[in-house]
Amino acid sequence: MRYLTSLALFAPFAAAIWPLPSSYTSGDTVLWIDGGVQISYNAANNVGSILAANALKEYAPVDPQLTTNPQSYPHSYWNKNRNSTAGHRASQQIIQYAIQRTYDTVLKKNFVPWKFHERNEDFEPPTEDKTFISRITLQQNAADPDNILTPRAGDLDESYSLSLTEDGEATIEAETSIGLVRGLTTFTQLFYKHSAGGAYTPFAPVEIEDEPKFPHRGLNMDTSRNYFSVSDIKRTIDAMAYNKFNRLHWHITDAQSWPLEIPALPELAAKGAYRRDLTYTPGNFEEIQYFAAIQGVEVIVEIDMPGHTSSIWFSQPELITAFNAQPDWNTYCAEPPCGSLKLNSTAVYDFLATMWDDLLPRVRSSYFHTGGDEVNVNAYLLDDTVRSNDTAVLQPLMQRFIDFNHGRVREAGLTPVVWEEMLLTWNLTLGDDVVIQTWQSDEAVAEVVAAGHKALVGNYNYWYLDCGKGQWLDFAPGLASQKYWPYNDYCSPRKNWRLMYSYDPLHGIPANSSHLVLGGECHIWAEQTDPINFDDMVWPRACAAAEVLWSGAKDENGQNRSQIEASPRLSEMRERLVARGVRAEPIQMPFCIMNGTQCSLAT
Amino acid sequence: MRYLTSLALFAPFAAAIWPLPSSYTSGDTVLWIDGGVQISYNAANNVGSILAANALKEYAPVDPQLTTNPQSYPHSYWNKNRNSTAGHRASQQIIQYAIQRTYDTVLKKNFVPWKFHERNEDFEPPTEDKTFISRITLQQNAADPDNILTPRAGDLDESYSLSLTEDGEATIEAETSIGLVRGLTTFTQLFYKHSAGGAYTPFAPVEIEDEPKFPHRGLNMDTSRNYFSVSDIKRTIDAMAYNKFNRLHWHITDAQSWPLEIPALPELAAKGAYRRDLTYTPGNFEEIQYFAAIQGVEVIVEIDMPGHTSSIWFSQPELITAFNAQPDWNTYCAEPPCGSLKLNSTAVYDFLATMWDDLLPRVRSSYFHTGGDEVNVNAYLLDDTVRSNDTAVLQPLMQRFIDFNHGRVREAGLTPVVWEEMLLTWNLTLGDDVVIQTWQSDEAVAEVVAAGHKALVGNYNYWYLDCGKGQWLDFAPGLASQKYWPYNDYCSPRKNWRLMYSYDPLHGIPANSSHLVLGGECHIWAEQTDPINFDDMVWPRACAAAEVLWSGAKDENGQNRSQIEASPRLSEMRERLVARGVRAEPIQMPFCIMNGTQCSLAT
Repeated sequence: MRYLTSLALFAPFAAAIWPLPSSYTSGDTVLWIDGGVQISYNAANNVGSILAANALKEYAPVDPQLTTNPQSYPHSYWNKNRNSTAGHRASQQIIQYAIQRTYDTVLKKNFVPWKFHERNEDFEPPTEDKTFISRITLQQNAADPDNILTPRAGDLDESYSLSLTEDGEATIEAETSIGLVRGLTTFTQLFYKHSAGGAYTPFAPVEIEDEPKFPHRGLNMDTSRNYFSVSDIKRTIDAMAYNKFNRLHWHITDAQSWPLEIPALPELAAKGAYRRDLTYTPGNFEEIQYFAAIQGVEVIVEIDMPGHTSSIWFSQPELITAFNAQPDWNTYCAEPPCGSLKLNSTAVYDFLATMWDDLLPRVRSSYFHTGGDEVNVNAYLLDDTVRSNDTAVLQPLMQRFIDFNHGRVREAGLTPVVWEEMLLTWNLTLGDDVVIQTWQSDEAVAEVVAAGHKALVGNYNYWYLDCGKGQWLDFAPGLASQKYWPYNDYCSPRKNWRLMYSYDPLHGIPANSSHLVLGGECHIWAEQTDPINFDDMVWPRACAAAEVLWSGAKDENGQNRSQIEASPRLSEMRERLVARGVRAEPIQMPFCIMNGTQCSLAT
Repeated sequence: MRYLTSLALFAPFAAAIWPLPSSYTSGDTVLWIDGGVQISYNAANNVGSILAANALKEYAPVDPQLTTNPQSYPHSYWNKNRNSTAGHRASQQIIQYAIQRTYDTVLKKNFVPWKFHERNEDFEPPTEDKTFISRITLQQNAADPDNILTPRAGDLDESYSLSLTEDGEATIEAETSIGLVRGLTTFTQLFYKHSAGGAYTPFAPVEIEDEPKFPHRGLNMDTSRNYFSVSDIKRTIDAMAYNKFNRLHWHITDAQSWPLEIPALPELAAKGAYRRDLTYTPGNFEEIQYFAAIQGVEVIVEIDMPGHTSSIWFSQPELITAFNAQPDWNTYCAEPPCGSLKLNSTAVYDFLATMWDDLLPRVRSSYFHTGGDEVNVNAYLLDDTVRSNDTAVLQPLMQRFIDFNHGRVREAGLTPVVWEEMLLTWNLTLGDDVVIQTWQSDEAVAEVVAAGHKALVGNYNYWYLDCGKGQWLDFAPGLASQKYWPYNDYCSPRKNWRLMYSYDPLHGIPANSSHLVLGGECHIWAEQTDPINFDDMVWPRACAAAEVLWSGAKDENGQNRSQIEASPRLSEMRERLVARGVRAEPIQMPFCIMNGTQCSLAT
């Protein structure tokens, strides 16, 4: 009796689309899909209607060079897209890749959803008399901008609508090719693998209208403290796009290693990378940006300065102050090895000019992040060009430093991004264009927008994925240290998906300033993360941030969205990530998922 | 100048053997090893000297059936070893498998230790004029007991000595074949892969004397809340043996699923497993025990009772009280689904008798764990054979229940193990033979040994590997619940390796009772752990427990062992685990490991 009662608690089974669409209705008709489905792509641009592809199948890669040796990776993609038919050609590349991913996801990397049904339930549809989806129409209502792969002018329209009729006609409609990509991503989440083979949706008819709440939805990945291969980064971009993230913040260099090859400064990576082969060549750099762009993910490169630059010391020690100060490192920096670019050095400015001339023209984004976090003034006590930790002395030098860098960034047609300290701690005068990335508090966001600046959120008490492993520092023996090391890394404890999901980027922001909150990022710093554990450190927890940024933190009643609704849906998203080769951790045991809301607790 | 000073902090480079041997000296002569090394096995048993193998090479599996379909896995291993030459034959199997693993580890699954040297340092030995190790002599000074693969009579001698001369003669000496296995495990940790191919040790000559501090060194693995495949379990046993663990506590069943096939009760797993195919067949059961035994790991099977048995309800609902009580489950149990075996039921005793008759003869261990944790008295309010939560009513019924089960366990020649609550909460009268597994406090250990019982440790504040992910329960919306879900799983925060390493099993135990502390176990409960994230939840943190149990928690001065000494050594052990296919997480970034003790902090 108790058990029967509890059965009634089961939520109606519906497609577990993540992130949640703006509106969504579905039915319970089963439709199958296979490689025979006809696909048409109708784009309302000046070229007229294009048949991009005539079946859902495995295409050759969009460009064969995508799979060639990264060392010889050519720089031709972007040039191809700069001529007069660039938008047209780019749109075709985008759609062709999206169809490839749809094929791969639905027909090859899908999963049997037994965990989401009662134990030993015979939940799969019969395999006789299958009705197949006959056609997918991709309808693009506006021409893509020419720069769709190299967005220089703000944000793309990513909205779409999706319709799937009971008789097997699917239509996805959008203003841009990337909108169609988002719609196809949603489309794949309607389908399951059948244990007898094939894929089906049990949810027809389906009607979806969808658009993102925030234009900036990012993950920040640190490739300095540990090196991640091109394939690790591509796997991450793929998982990001599957969560409708659209910004990969690539924190590419830091104190511990400099993996980015700058051909004009060849010793920088040759001596500053962890190993000579653990670098990103210009080819890798291009490949990663392209791989992201065709999925609607913009790569925002960060060279963090003037702190977090100790790895430059290995090639040019004369540029760095306080390098690896020991053993009193915590006087000079936030973590070993200490080191900052000297603040009043001609040699530093020469270095920067050379780097910018080399690097900035190769950036395929609308933004460039110049860093600026955690600058410790004591480092400049040891700086022979300054010899002071007095902010009255240092502040004008920092202003000059930022002005120089942001000038170069703007000359390259890019918008600067900085960490909050440049505005809130150093009180620098920053251009109106500069985007301020906050991380320390919700109050910081409020201060940034009150100053009229655009802000990114990512409060470390909510969205830092690295927290909670305890200290990675080794402590001297003795019980006195015990209070520090078991738990207290600076951002302990671990942020679970529930906490991340409760974080509202607009918390405490006046309505008339909310347009200045462009969105936010979750962060995976790599002190205790390398390619072996990266996936399960990031996924599926980052999905919680993805949904907040796409769907908003609040439900239709203005309340935090319900964990109880989100939890089984996130568990299903996790299974989809695992099926595509991402080692996302489980958030609940199968018993809980099988039994709907029975692993809940009212308080 | 600062940098040069800090270079002087580098510890002398020595083999990073984990767990730390009792005594160890080494030199700096390079010796290479390849498949041509001659191996002789001299066993002082009644058969005389045996040449087990004449070269380090890839053997066929010890028994071809080890790799056959588990469904058809035969029961013949143990029978083979019960005739008069059993000890001799088993010893040969053990040594042959150990040689196979040595080959695999040293020559195929090794790693280039660049992370443990200065950036871009040319640390590898020259590849000309190699001196090779010519011979490994395995000298066993006593005959193995006949039951070495099915230990029924206490603990084996695992001590060994290892000598490697500068001219390439290696000798491992031990009293038992398992002692030789431990010595070969240590031997493999002297070697690195060379990036030009081949393997070498830079540490000759080597002299090691070694023996374990505690006879019981275990990991407790939960296969009910999530299912783990035979291959997951074997990978875990392999990693355990590599850490000189010698007990796999197999918490095989629990409330959420019953994966263990009991042929006499076929519906138990058919209906109680998560899926019909997610079970352990009798063949799997045999295979796992054998795979462990030939590496000196004893599998201790637990059937947790009378609580944690809800999964029996799916086949025999009449045996279970309070099954999946909802929504007020926390009145009746510690986590969903509630359910306990009824306490005064003839049908329950019939069930148990059938199960014991089937299962116990198939157990290849000296122990059997009958569980007994977290029994909630309120469950018996709903038990139609009891209808009471009064301990005065329940205690005699529980005594009868335990007496019955332990009687059967003893009849099968096994020693019972129970969770601490049976003694400390229920005040049951338990045989002197019973081993009490504590988990709630150090005080519990002291109470158990004060009562004259043998104890296992594993305080959940130190050695629970599942802690710190936050609640897996879904909470009702509302800010009032927020204090519970972000962080507060019952054992938050996460126990890092430093905390685990600081745990002394003998803390607070009088010297005259310390012999009653057999050792301990670390625990990986599976509410938020499945095959995808199991490895990085367990490794390398469990290594910290392995070293405490093998080497002791205190150094020669009676102080906690130094994190600063252990940290780079554990990082190296982590690399060895990754090289053998175990996805162990990193504990520090390469910068810290490359630079010796520079990521430390005196407090």
